[in-house]
Amino acid sequence: MSTLLIKNIGLLQSPVGSHPHKGAEQGENIKLKNAAVLCENGIIKEVTFEGKLPQGADDADTIIDAEGRLMTPGLVEGHTHLVFGGYRQHEIPLKLAGAGYLDILAAGGGILDTVRNTRKASFEELYDKAEGFLDEMMGLGVTTCEAKSGYGLDFENEIKMLKVVEKLNADHPMDVVSTFMGAHAVPDEYKGKADAYIDLMCDELLPYVKKENLAQFCDAFCEEGVFDVPQTEKYMKVAKELGFKLKLHADEIEEIGGSELAGRMGAVSAEHLIAIGEKGMAALQQAGTTAMLLPATSFYLGKTFAPAKRMIELGIPVAIASDFNPGSCPSLNLQFAINLGYLKYRMLPEEILTAVTINPACAIGMGDKVGTAEPGKQADFVIWDAPDMEMLCYRFGSNMALQTIKKGVLV
Amino acid sequence: MSTLLIKNIGLLQSPVGSHPHKGAEQGENIKLKNAAVLCENGIIKEVTFEGKLPQGADDADTIIDAEGRLMTPGLVEGHTHLVFGGYRQHEIPLKLAGAGYLDILAAGGGILDTVRNTRKASFEELYDKAEGFLDEMMGLGVTTCEAKSGYGLDFENEIKMLKVVEKLNADHPMDVVSTFMGAHAVPDEYKGKADAYIDLMCDELLPYVKKENLAQFCDAFCEEGVFDVPQTEKYMKVAKELGFKLKLHADEIEEIGGSELAGRMGAVSAEHLIAIGEKGMAALQQAGTTAMLLPATSFYLGKTFAPAKRMIELGIPVAIASDFNPGSCPSLNLQFAINLGYLKYRMLPEEILTAVTINPACAIGMGDKVGTAEPGKQADFVIWDAPDMEMLCYRFGSNMALQTIKKGVLV
Repeated sequence: MSTLLIKNIGLLQSPVGSHPHKGAEQGENIKLKNAAVLCENGIIKEVTFEGKLPQGADDADTIIDAEGRLMTPGLVEGHTHLVFGGYRQHEIPLKLAGAGYLDILAAGGGILDTVRNTRKASFEELYDKAEGFLDEMMGLGVTTCEAKSGYGLDFENEIKMLKVVEKLNADHPMDVVSTFMGAHAVPDEYKGKADAYIDLMCDELLPYVKKENLAQFCDAFCEEGVFDVPQTEKYMKVAKELGFKLKLHADEIEEIGGSELAGRMGAVSAEHLIAIGEKGMAALQQAGTTAMLLPATSFYLGKTFAPAKRMIELGIPVAIASDFNPGSCPSLNLQFAINLGYLKYRMLPEEILTAVTINPACAIGMGDKVGTAEPGKQADFVIWDAPDMEMLCYRFGSNMALQTIKKGVLV
Repeated sequence: MSTLLIKNIGLLQSPVGSHPHKGAEQGENIKLKNAAVLCENGIIKEVTFEGKLPQGADDADTIIDAEGRLMTPGLVEGHTHLVFGGYRQHEIPLKLAGAGYLDILAAGGGILDTVRNTRKASFEELYDKAEGFLDEMMGLGVTTCEAKSGYGLDFENEIKMLKVVEKLNADHPMDVVSTFMGAHAVPDEYKGKADAYIDLMCDELLPYVKKENLAQFCDAFCEEGVFDVPQTEKYMKVAKELGFKLKLHADEIEEIGGSELAGRMGAVSAEHLIAIGEKGMAALQQAGTTAMLLPATSFYLGKTFAPAKRMIELGIPVAIASDFNPGSCPSLNLQFAINLGYLKYRMLPEEILTAVTINPACAIGMGDKVGTAEPGKQADFVIWDAPDMEMLCYRFGSNMALQTIKKGVLV
């Protein structure tokens, strides 16, 4: 048995429970002053406060002194495209010259460029690159992370991506949750044949991914010019029947009914939602679907920001994630998404903490294991170079995570 | 004699010369492939490329292998309020509840809060805090930095701030250039008596600062509700007669004639310029005044962005700085300002490199020593975890600086 004591925590702030937090509860955090936490074999055993110490604190194998700082649960990153080949910085001169997304795509660039580079990359190359990203994310306070496939877009390469994620989850201290996203784009060789591509997904990929247990979640990009509502619905129905839990990229650019589809299919989360309207929000609210908001993508693309406060008001659980990917958000920094949660969504610091801990944890099937600082959960924490959550919302551009603790071990 | 060889530089990119770069020259960088640099006693001795090595390379005391990466001159940070007491994260709940800048100021908050905390802080406290910031900035690739006073707002505390900067410049590897900014705000005890406060600056502070050689530059905040044009002009005239070089916070919120004043007075740089119009730009262009643009402040305050490309078009030298301060820009990350230079100003990567090296260097009186990778200049460099400047503009939220070299020493 190995034990860890974290003492002298100036403020231990955390949501409570293992369910998605919505409405008023989104903004409810416990705030324990002068707290301490005893962990046993990577699990939280006891939490004390007001200067009291847990039973057995004196005999802990390892002691971390938080020196009066803020500690929160480890951050949960609910939406990334972690595994990819290449980068797309070479599009900058084109973009500055006025080329739009479709111009770049028509020239064989955009996501198809990433697909080419991902297909070309070996398993080892993709693994090493993604491993570096996970290391960096942990240094920024993330202890659990979702990762989507979707740059292979054929049997061999989608499976290659999923196996990279599987091995990262096995090898890396980070908990990595795998999402199959074959329906991310229509590959070059299926140009103009999106239906046939959806058939390939439904007939071959989805059953194989399920049989091999390579992903628990399934996601798709329902968008004007990508997959329309009927195509997406067909794919989601097959996925659901096979036992996948559902996510959906919806209403990112145009409101074509993606959020309503997500609600209708009982998706666990709907992603982006920049263009969502009242009907879409009603669908999410009724289904209990979590809104996975990606503010750094709005920032990078110079778009408007999803109506986060309206969703909280309506009782939709709101999560905030990075959307790390080489096209629309080349940033893996969840702390910057926290800044945007304050600056652009105008969310309260408590609502933001919920949005980067328990709500994304629930949206990736980890709500019973991580996302709050309660006995029985994994001992995943961040000690911040800050006295309070307000400081994390306010300071930007600096890494405010001083120490990241994963399953009771300082990483 | 100590020598350093940096070899295997995939791309050495730099502006050329010791003067402010304007118009087309703003976008002109040399780009040397497979380059090497030999430095002697902290000064650049020879630059080679296309695989050639400098004479005496074999005998260098220290060798750094850039492993094919991008190297640029060390970044020059041209505008910070580096020294301050306290932080202002506690204003977040007020701001989210709808309080404006003036509401917070009326409640004794805003800049007056920082003034209170700066007055309260000891020399040592201010020094230690600012030293930590300089360390972090160096880790982000900055090798030369400007620092303003302006949170003391009385004799004792303005001098305390300037002496902190003086000692930092002496002790820290960073070159720190001092700017006196007594006319930053009207302190509480002079409320409604801005003229009398300007008299204090002109009669006592400016002569003393000059006599003690505590600052080479002088700056003021010319803005609606702070100091009007006649007050600012009086202060600048006294400063100029005493031999200070001039800077001016102009047209940040309202266009009240600040840029024209800056041009008329022959200021070396004018800062912010969010609200500048064609008349103001013409004045800067005629005077050869550098536009010191602060995009992270626009970002943080949710404002529009200064018309950077129009200024380049008009032949105004453009610099980009962080504006690090605890009120309107709690970020010291100049890399993020680089991202905004691309995303919001739509500047070319080459123009941006000029804007964070030679142009700010000239604007803080260091153009003959730093800001380009040429023989005779200080051996200040950054080796980036990137192959090109495009990558620095594109990736955001990660520290892309791999190694910072100051005066020929890896820091």
